Amino acid sequence: MSTRAQSWRVGDLATRFALEVRGDPDREISGVATLALAGPEHLSFLSNPHYRGQMQSSRAGVVVLRADDAALREGSALVARDPYVAYAHIAALFEPALLATPGIHASAVIDVTADVAASASIGPFCVIEAGAVVEDGAVLGPGCIVGADCVVGAGSRLVARVTLVTRVRLGRRVLVHPGAVIGSDGFGLAFERDHWIKVPQLGGVRIGDDCEIGANCTIDRGALEDTVLEEDVRLDNQIQIAHNVFIGAHTAMAGCSAVAGSARIGRYCLIGGAAGILGHLSVADRVTVTAMSLVTHSITAAGEYSSGTPIQENRQWRRNAARFRHLDELARRLKALEKDSAP
Amino acid sequence: MSTRAQSWRVGDLATRFALEVRGDPDREISGVATLALAGPEHLSFLSNPHYRGQMQSSRAGVVVLRADDAALREGSALVARDPYVAYAHIAALFEPALLATPGIHASAVIDVTADVAASASIGPFCVIEAGAVVEDGAVLGPGCIVGADCVVGAGSRLVARVTLVTRVRLGRRVLVHPGAVIGSDGFGLAFERDHWIKVPQLGGVRIGDDCEIGANCTIDRGALEDTVLEEDVRLDNQIQIAHNVFIGAHTAMAGCSAVAGSARIGRYCLIGGAAGILGHLSVADRVTVTAMSLVTHSITAAGEYSSGTPIQENRQWRRNAARFRHLDELARRLKALEKDSAP
Amino acid sequence: MSTRAQSWRVGDLATRFALEVRGDPDREISGVATLALAGPEHLSFLSNPHYRGQMQSSRAGVVVLRADDAALREGSALVARDPYVAYAHIAALFEPALLATPGIHASAVIDVTADVAASASIGPFCVIEAGAVVEDGAVLGPGCIVGADCVVGAGSRLVARVTLVTRVRLGRRVLVHPGAVIGSDGFGLAFERDHWIKVPQLGGVRIGDDCEIGANCTIDRGALEDTVLEEDVRLDNQIQIAHNVFIGAHTAMAGCSAVAGSARIGRYCLIGGAAGILGHLSVADRVTVTAMSLVTHSITAAGEYSSGTPIQENRQWRRNAARFRHLDELARRLKALEKDSAP
Repeated sequence: MSTRAQSWRVGDLATRFALEVRGDPDREISGVATLALAGPEHLSFLSNPHYRGQMQSSRAGVVVLRADDAALREGSALVARDPYVAYAHIAALFEPALLATPGIHASAVIDVTADVAASASIGPFCVIEAGAVVEDGAVLGPGCIVGADCVVGAGSRLVARVTLVTRVRLGRRVLVHPGAVIGSDGFGLAFERDHWIKVPQLGGVRIGDDCEIGANCTIDRGALEDTVLEEDVRLDNQIQIAHNVFIGAHTAMAGCSAVAGSARIGRYCLIGGAAGILGHLSVADRVTVTAMSLVTHSITAAGEYSSGTPIQENRQWRRNAARFRHLDELARRLKALEKDSAP
Repeated sequence: MSTRAQSWRVGDLATRFALEVRGDPDREISGVATLALAGPEHLSFLSNPHYRGQMQSSRAGVVVLRADDAALREGSALVARDPYVAYAHIAALFEPALLATPGIHASAVIDVTADVAASASIGPFCVIEAGAVVEDGAVLGPGCIVGADCVVGAGSRLVARVTLVTRVRLGRRVLVHPGAVIGSDGFGLAFERDHWIKVPQLGGVRIGDDCEIGANCTIDRGALEDTVLEEDVRLDNQIQIAHNVFIGAHTAMAGCSAVAGSARIGRYCLIGGAAGILGHLSVADRVTVTAMSLVTHSITAAGEYSSGTPIQENRQWRRNAARFRHLDELARRLKALEKDSAP
Repeated sequence: MSTRAQSWRVGDLATRFALEVRGDPDREISGVATLALAGPEHLSFLSNPHYRGQMQSSRAGVVVLRADDAALREGSALVARDPYVAYAHIAALFEPALLATPGIHASAVIDVTADVAASASIGPFCVIEAGAVVEDGAVLGPGCIVGADCVVGAGSRLVARVTLVTRVRLGRRVLVHPGAVIGSDGFGLAFERDHWIKVPQLGGVRIGDDCEIGANCTIDRGALEDTVLEEDVRLDNQIQIAHNVFIGAHTAMAGCSAVAGSARIGRYCLIGGAAGILGHLSVADRVTVTAMSLVTHSITAAGEYSSGTPIQENRQWRRNAARFRHLDELARRLKALEKDSAP
């Protein structure tokens, strides 16, 4: 629960977001809250049918819901085709505004050849290296590093302690969370006789407009061509994107997932938490990969894909896992029996 | 092996930690070491029976051990109910003291509305934003960021480069290792027609007393309510805790494990390395999840749980894994055979 | 594609790297590029036979290739025993030189007892604590922290925002990428009655010459003895190395892999992405572990090892996974049938 000073009339919210009011349009809303914790001054929402019971006992002043659920609601409601989307828009009205004064903090170290827009905000202890560009309205929180020749597009925000290493180009309105490292060396090694030598990583990273990069993510730059995220790609925390990966627009990846070198992921994909995608594979548009699955071959058709085994009480699991070690033999024995029993 | 100037009499250690001396109480100990490397000036311990052989050949001046193992030891010993716990207490005597002078480093940037206790120590390049509070005796190493309105409880320590983003409240004596990011945006997205919109993350993070957060962990703040770690929760490195997760007191999680949004984990749980817990699940108290297992449904009883398959030589594994793709068919064929062979 | 001002004669490259020229030795090369994007001014390479077709249509000025593939190439070529190794050496000629002026940035905070070589380069907002040593020619990018008594060996480079916490000793020419945390507390806990107590972590970390540590990796220091990486160990991003792990020379680990406490990994191993190795195990030299496999027992022979199940369309996978829960029972039923059908 969090509120801002301003309050909103339910009728005005309906007008603003093209929703239908049921009940009192003059009710004033001063914040948003979950169904369980909302009071009469709060707006809440019902998206997951699982929470219908909670809605019926909720003290919320108004609830955003689907037309189908409106009959279940005694108090005021706002009917939406997609209550979660409508809620997201409304909640943004109550989000504390980001305070970022244009200008460069006295402690920041900016190379004389860097080009920082007057409307940009550069926080304490930022470092902006030679030839780097920070466009209009971009905000760099404390401790960000923008390496030589990198570009931070207009309206982008590096929350804090973000590092853009080499040849990184962020589009407009890109949001990068603390600890993310973009444009570090790809893991390129060649084995010469008895030791490794480094393969120069001469490419860069291009991040499209409206992307979001979670805390402590790592996105390596390409070996020769660029690593690419198209527009509106959404990465949760601690995701690893190797060199020369290509991720299509509007794909969302959950925390701790990882993509190996030169893999190509389509548009509108959903990659589950801690899922992995091996190198040099292609994944079609609109593919869902469930959590902790490993994609070991290219996927050419939209759909949902999984690997792994179900969780079980450990003693049972041990017995089953031990049998897995001999599954091929077991299948052969079955086949032999079938042969024997054939007429 | 590491020592501090001071040395301790074995008899005094026994008194201090309620242990029983076998052998010479006047022996002086100036450090701790493993059984294999200890010399006569060192104290060592035997907790894992696996190392009994090493103890018998150890040159350690004194060994902390269970009564059962005392007969195996020729030299001096300290008998403890739990030798590892006793060792931990004794080793702390030999740990180099943390040097942290109260006061604020000249380079730190502290907002005038922040409230920093006189006894706190704020290192170089720290940033403390508006309305933030740093309580008595808290220590912030170099490069820490305490976002607006965050609270660092008394006696807590942010080792270095820790970021508290928004609405984070650390309890007392919380220890946070470098690179951890707490209170970043939860991964809240709603899909509107053909693109993602961000769902405001209006909650915070509450971390209880005596918690420990490993290096490069990420703990997101809640969407509406808070993400919560109760007291004495222990997180190893690179753990991801999504928004609105609740973790009960005294639960310990090993490196690279992850918990998805709104999952609720009980007290005294042990979560193995790289294990995952899906969103909106509940896990009962005293549940152990083994390494790299994925919890896909709620667990209602204490016990040990696992998923996955055993490691094998790759050629064998390939054959078994190929059979897994047809396991359901195999089971059906078995059933058919059983039917045929029934009398 | 990236170039430096300088260009090279093909014949001179051949001499320098002991390659054989096919075609025109006087051709000038000003950069390197992929077969698909190269122009006449570029050198490219063919290592993976998969790309033979691309080579035949490539506009590259010269291609580094194996003798076997030379017949397929119409234009100039450089014949190498290992084209990828030869390419790596040549590409390094075109890599933009790292600019690092010796000296200490005015903003850096260096303890008076630290020993920083005059030829070292210390970037803005670095912190070097008491007794630390930075040897000849070492380069610390912005925001690095070198804890008390840590050593950065000659010619090593900490790219940016690297943290060496306690008792860390880097060898020569070690490359550490942004966000890495080395020498943090190992995850040592003892359970005393009803809560955890911390086991002091009194060891350190030793990193051999020519190692590379990826972005956001974490390497904990040992409990009593050191955590050790021998020379030329190569870690990709987001790898977790727990306390007292030992990794043999020339082993390479892919992104997001993790090694639990006191495990011992041999030389020349290849650990796949997101693979895990449990604590206290040994892994022999020249072992390959495939991506996302979990090593649950010691491996005593060189070879390739795997665990997991293949990815499938989710509906099929669910059916197979459900059968896995009863695999032991299934095997017993098969055995019973075999018994029944025995003559």
